[in-house]
Amino acid sequence: MGARNPFEAREVTSRRGGPSKAPLSRDAIVAEALRQLRRDGLAGMSLRKVATALKTGPASLYAYVDDLHELQALVLDRALAKVVVRGAGRGWRARLESLLASYLEVLFGSPGLAALALGTIAVGPNSLRITEILLGLFEEAGVDRRTAAWASDLFLLYATAIAAEHGGRDAKHDPAHPAGAVARAIRGVSALEHPHLHAARAELLSGGGGQRVAWAIDVLLKGILPADRKASPARRRPRLGRRVG
Amino acid sequence: MGARNPFEAREVTSRRGGPSKAPLSRDAIVAEALRQLRRDGLAGMSLRKVATALKTGPASLYAYVDDLHELQALVLDRALAKVVVRGAGRGWRARLESLLASYLEVLFGSPGLAALALGTIAVGPNSLRITEILLGLFEEAGVDRRTAAWASDLFLLYATAIAAEHGGRDAKHDPAHPAGAVARAIRGVSALEHPHLHAARAELLSGGGGQRVAWAIDVLLKGILPADRKASPARRRPRLGRRVG
Repeated sequence: MGARNPFEAREVTSRRGGPSKAPLSRDAIVAEALRQLRRDGLAGMSLRKVATALKTGPASLYAYVDDLHELQALVLDRALAKVVVRGAGRGWRARLESLLASYLEVLFGSPGLAALALGTIAVGPNSLRITEILLGLFEEAGVDRRTAAWASDLFLLYATAIAAEHGGRDAKHDPAHPAGAVARAIRGVSALEHPHLHAARAELLSGGGGQRVAWAIDVLLKGILPADRKASPARRRPRLGRRVG
Repeated sequence: MGARNPFEAREVTSRRGGPSKAPLSRDAIVAEALRQLRRDGLAGMSLRKVATALKTGPASLYAYVDDLHELQALVLDRALAKVVVRGAGRGWRARLESLLASYLEVLFGSPGLAALALGTIAVGPNSLRITEILLGLFEEAGVDRRTAAWASDLFLLYATAIAAEHGGRDAKHDPAHPAGAVARAIRGVSALEHPHLHAARAELLSGGGGQRVAWAIDVLLKGILPADRKASPARRRPRLGRRVG
């Protein structure tokens, strides 16, 4: 009763002819759906709209994709093709940070893509490629296999969540804005009712500009690295800033 | 230009009379919206539907809530009222786990609530209450104030993401299903193309039944606790199982 894996599905050859229409293919459908996602966000992508853009009826699409779930899985994987690792020749940590930065950049690049990634089964070729890289980097870091497997999932979940959290908010509702609702609510808490919140007001509002993401990656790594591999941040950070080559 | 904080807004008195309608109030609007969210998920909750259920027009609601964003923030906070900490008298870690379990239970209880939590500014009284508790627990654990502040956010983000990841999937698409697409894709990877994935097949598919959540909380705690507070899991776990009182 499991869902079929859309990446296992055979490509179907278009049966429609005529001079005015481009040949229909799974590739053309996924490319058009990704265009719609980038332009209009998750709610703006649908089988009906893809069919209209490709000058066909929704029924014709079902020869190529089963349903919206399958289309979303194919679109996610197509978008993840842009995730890369830079820093060949540098240490595992620099390459891990490069991979996560690239993953975040791709998710931030299309509104709705992060929400789609959270709700979609990521088993396409690019998801597999990304997990393969992560497992290799964690092995280099001296992490045992089970920890590496679960950590791959945890790091991607964290990055996806950060992107989903920010992707759902327009600038007006940006909680990081100094005049935003979060800042005002936290600055306004009562020391009597919320003593800890009141004492930590400044710290709760600090950490913009990627500082928190860098901190969270550090926390996750401290949590998974074997004790003998944990360099102190003071020893590690300067090394990260240095470029090789 | 910041968004106004809906929790700061004054309550408005209903101006409508007549015997057949219950008095309109922000409270009645939020209660009805939460009912819709629980029944139909995030996409099934709208100002229009709330107006219909309360036998009024959408325009009448705008005296009480600014827009869908504000309604969502109010609904989220109403739902979070059910988040509790059990285990008074037990150590900080048992209470932290109880709080996170309760938060997860609330998010899993309403389809769409986790997605809403990811996309909504959480500054209502119940969000503040939960952060206040977390800050107190981290202080007990010996964590410095900045780490505690950022960790409160990270732990809630992790729990929200786990709930959002699962909330968006129906049973047919449950990736944890042994016959599901994930299991089949991972079991089917080529040892040549994806050697690390192939070697870690079993580990990638292990960890159901809350095991991964417990592991992830452990990872996050190892990442934030000062070195002298890190008990080894072997020493800590039996203590957690013991009940006080």
